[in-house]
Amino acid sequence: MRYTQMFIPTVREVPSDAVIASHILMIRAGMIRQLAAGAYTYLPLGYRVLQKAERIVREEMNAAGAIELHMPVVIPIEAFRKTGRDEAYGELMFRIKDRNGTMLALGPTHEEVITQIVADHVNSYRQLPLNLYQIQTKFRDEERPKSGVLRTREFLMKDAYSFHTSLESLEETYQKMYAAYENMFKRCGLPVVSVEAESGPIGGSASHEFMVLTDVGEDSVVSCGSCSYAANIERAARKVSEVSPGDKADGPELREVHTPGMTTIAQVSEFLKVRPDQMIKTLVYRSGEHVIVGLVRGDHDINESKLARAAGVETVELADEGTIRKLTGAEVGFAGPVKLSAEKMIVDIDVWAIADGVTGANKTDYHLVGVVPGRDFAVDADRVADIRNVAQGDQCPKCSGELAFERAIEVGHVFKLGTKYSTAIGAEFTDAEGKSHSMIMGCYGIGINRILAAAIEVNHDESGIIWPISIAPYEVIILPLSAKDEQVAGLAEKLHDELEAAGVDVLLDDRDARPGVKFKDADLIGIPVRVTIGPKGLANNVVEVKLRNEAEAKNVPVDQAGQYIRQLVEDLHRQLGE
Amino acid sequence: MRYTQMFIPTVREVPSDAVIASHILMIRAGMIRQLAAGAYTYLPLGYRVLQKAERIVREEMNAAGAIELHMPVVIPIEAFRKTGRDEAYGELMFRIKDRNGTMLALGPTHEEVITQIVADHVNSYRQLPLNLYQIQTKFRDEERPKSGVLRTREFLMKDAYSFHTSLESLEETYQKMYAAYENMFKRCGLPVVSVEAESGPIGGSASHEFMVLTDVGEDSVVSCGSCSYAANIERAARKVSEVSPGDKADGPELREVHTPGMTTIAQVSEFLKVRPDQMIKTLVYRSGEHVIVGLVRGDHDINESKLARAAGVETVELADEGTIRKLTGAEVGFAGPVKLSAEKMIVDIDVWAIADGVTGANKTDYHLVGVVPGRDFAVDADRVADIRNVAQGDQCPKCSGELAFERAIEVGHVFKLGTKYSTAIGAEFTDAEGKSHSMIMGCYGIGINRILAAAIEVNHDESGIIWPISIAPYEVIILPLSAKDEQVAGLAEKLHDELEAAGVDVLLDDRDARPGVKFKDADLIGIPVRVTIGPKGLANNVVEVKLRNEAEAKNVPVDQAGQYIRQLVEDLHRQLGE
Repeated sequence: MRYTQMFIPTVREVPSDAVIASHILMIRAGMIRQLAAGAYTYLPLGYRVLQKAERIVREEMNAAGAIELHMPVVIPIEAFRKTGRDEAYGELMFRIKDRNGTMLALGPTHEEVITQIVADHVNSYRQLPLNLYQIQTKFRDEERPKSGVLRTREFLMKDAYSFHTSLESLEETYQKMYAAYENMFKRCGLPVVSVEAESGPIGGSASHEFMVLTDVGEDSVVSCGSCSYAANIERAARKVSEVSPGDKADGPELREVHTPGMTTIAQVSEFLKVRPDQMIKTLVYRSGEHVIVGLVRGDHDINESKLARAAGVETVELADEGTIRKLTGAEVGFAGPVKLSAEKMIVDIDVWAIADGVTGANKTDYHLVGVVPGRDFAVDADRVADIRNVAQGDQCPKCSGELAFERAIEVGHVFKLGTKYSTAIGAEFTDAEGKSHSMIMGCYGIGINRILAAAIEVNHDESGIIWPISIAPYEVIILPLSAKDEQVAGLAEKLHDELEAAGVDVLLDDRDARPGVKFKDADLIGIPVRVTIGPKGLANNVVEVKLRNEAEAKNVPVDQAGQYIRQLVEDLHRQLGE
Repeated sequence: MRYTQMFIPTVREVPSDAVIASHILMIRAGMIRQLAAGAYTYLPLGYRVLQKAERIVREEMNAAGAIELHMPVVIPIEAFRKTGRDEAYGELMFRIKDRNGTMLALGPTHEEVITQIVADHVNSYRQLPLNLYQIQTKFRDEERPKSGVLRTREFLMKDAYSFHTSLESLEETYQKMYAAYENMFKRCGLPVVSVEAESGPIGGSASHEFMVLTDVGEDSVVSCGSCSYAANIERAARKVSEVSPGDKADGPELREVHTPGMTTIAQVSEFLKVRPDQMIKTLVYRSGEHVIVGLVRGDHDINESKLARAAGVETVELADEGTIRKLTGAEVGFAGPVKLSAEKMIVDIDVWAIADGVTGANKTDYHLVGVVPGRDFAVDADRVADIRNVAQGDQCPKCSGELAFERAIEVGHVFKLGTKYSTAIGAEFTDAEGKSHSMIMGCYGIGINRILAAAIEVNHDESGIIWPISIAPYEVIILPLSAKDEQVAGLAEKLHDELEAAGVDVLLDDRDARPGVKFKDADLIGIPVRVTIGPKGLANNVVEVKLRNEAEAKNVPVDQAGQYIRQLVEDLHRQLGE
């Protein structure tokens, strides 16, 4: 391909909301353009990368025995009502009313649709297992789309759904998918770690996320320095030590203090000169019609999944201000457990251990000091639980080693769904004895766009992107340093045609531009192999070959250049396990 | 691929709304399933066909120098307001409100988005021409989705947009696209004719549709038996003869007659014993706030494009009942031109020639007989025009030959857009003299799903589909007649592996099923080459090779089978120009 015949609008200016490298570089390299919040056009260069990543995912899925199909984007909302996901997705699901007034959803995932198809056509254990997948645009009305293509409202997803007669069969396919994911990410040049994860609105009994570690990731990965334990922050457990609360009778005096306008832990802590770990944070949640209160230490973050589990409900969401005011009789920021008539109050273990605490007084502009849990508010023993995120200093739940924390981008997620969907929808099979059972399911997602962003985050420098060759928009870029020098231009053309004929993805920068411009753009768009052809080299009968991720160039005799580059491209692919 | 590892749910029963062959056969062959009105899941077999058609389209677009990119499905509604298409599309465009209350459209096409991108990044004549395309799911809220995948609310479309500095450059790309389309359709085994067409809500100065002739098509193609003239029914013109209206003074007597409940041409014609060609059909339209009345002969169909052109407006749509009642003072079915105070009344030339007509009396349950145009209602000379569809017996506008009529499926549509979008959006280029001009545009669409339906309509028999090899889900199907005969099963496996290794798409029917079941399914799903392996043939050291579209089978020695089949597959591709 000739540069002048492609459409590669590189730019210097990027919008101010672009702060992470992948976002900035994809815009600068002319790969994406934002059309609306969380909706990006993939320009030709970007789309080539997306298609390459898609092809790798497809090849590995096919190799793992999964079968591709394609479901509609538009799904009648009733499908989600059967499984309760209409409500579970809430505002995250785009809803649309058609001209006849029928409510439709833009599919966020397709568990309901695929389960219905399988229910309609599979009824015997002989037809199982089955692993069906699609690669398709998904829609989620994210509250805060951000970070370029990392969190968007429209994205390309590979979603697979497997159906089984037994947990053993599910485990087998789960492991196959796990291995396929490792292959895909390796081929895409992405170092991934897999961690235990929460299932969220998808549901199910167990799940793992595939994470690319990078400081700009939205997710937190917790791992043990001593053993193989790793989980995301929502899921991570810790070793919980025995807690013996202080002498309840002989504690400090409970007093009300005036804290005008102090609504945050930081404000109150500074104002009253108390450490955050002495404070009791009181958070009000709803679960459907129910109000649930969680107490954690001021220096800790509450973990909603753990809270929901401890409260025995499926999900919780932060209560609105009205609910909080009604419950506490005070403005938001002054809630506390003392004399609070909450339906359900879950107390974090570390709160239980506080001997002299500070918390809101349920009275606007007032806090309480000298608070003793169990003395000043009732603590129900079976409502004391681990409901906070793990934190620096916590111990591994498996081996008591120290837990470490890293940021990461989630690129894949696999779930053991169990029978949640098959039971709701009636996907049953008959076993060899003629008895009916609900099918056991798994599901397996990959965000294809995120592969691109993650690949850039872990492979770039100050000059631009450094693509792994497997997903590079072109494998080789040829830079003739003078468009007017016939010998230079002629050799560049000849080498381009030779490589293209040999199946190499090659871009010839045939622009009538200064060498500096060509070098800069080549570095920015990140083509792995750069071939420079200039009059000086030609005088010595050589061209210069340089890898994007190496500093040193190599002079290669003109008559060996084609063969040398083809071998180099092959080697680079092999390094990625291709 | 082994049949038992694919998911091919063939069925006998089809829903009663499936009446055309492609719809019935795609369901029976386990290729599609309806999820909602106009939204289909492509099951694995169907998706393979769709992907093959998509690949052919992509290859030909790339070969023609078009560059692929990918725009979002979700488009802010403002983009369409700039060009007036928000209104032009009307209810056909799906609209969605996001969580922040922003109105978004699900893209029916992407002229506005691509034009903005080009406006942002192209400003010199040196950067043009440019032809950008995408293959993407489009959405239209069709009033009556029908005919399986032929008219759906969600479909896969290839849409290309070209940008030029001159009409000559547009013409060049238009011809390139035209040629690319001919290649694509030939490769897909589709005999197409191209016809002049109306541009509809896309707009522009000229357009052509690519049509596959078949009785079940929704479109009508008009062509001349003597010259190359061909157009769709909306566009088709005719040779209009000079009309001399009868003597206005000496005509019949105008009388009112009672026609209780007679609202259709057929009813009135029978009741009053007059021929439909004596009747004046009075149709009421709206164009924005304006009311436009069109008069055509009772045996003719009004042509809305011609009516709009004659009335000097962009589009017209049939008025609602309220408007008609208000205008005529009567129930719908009794409108007529006599004493009608219409804002604009366009009279078809053939109505002008009526000497003794019948029409509605603008009074419920009454008609007028003895109507003479020009005497009983004013006919403005510059409001007499050709506003009807051409009909049997009309003459070619080019050569006066007789026009013929055929039904067809539209599979592609190319448009010369001119500057409609570039002017509205501000896509300008500077010429060599430094002067600014609006870019001249073309656009080029293909409905990929329709390729499948059209291919089936022209290639099937009572047993099932007969796929052209280029888009067949598999090129070869191997039927071992006995799964238990080790020699048969072993050879089938060996041949399967050999062909698969050679890059042939081969399906091995390894089901433990009766030969009759296997033969039936192979015919139904329409694999072009069938290889039957049975104990009897093996005794003679032969396998049977049969083409789906031929009656005779051929015995091929076992040791030559692989080579023979590979050659056959190659030959079949070559016949399609591949």
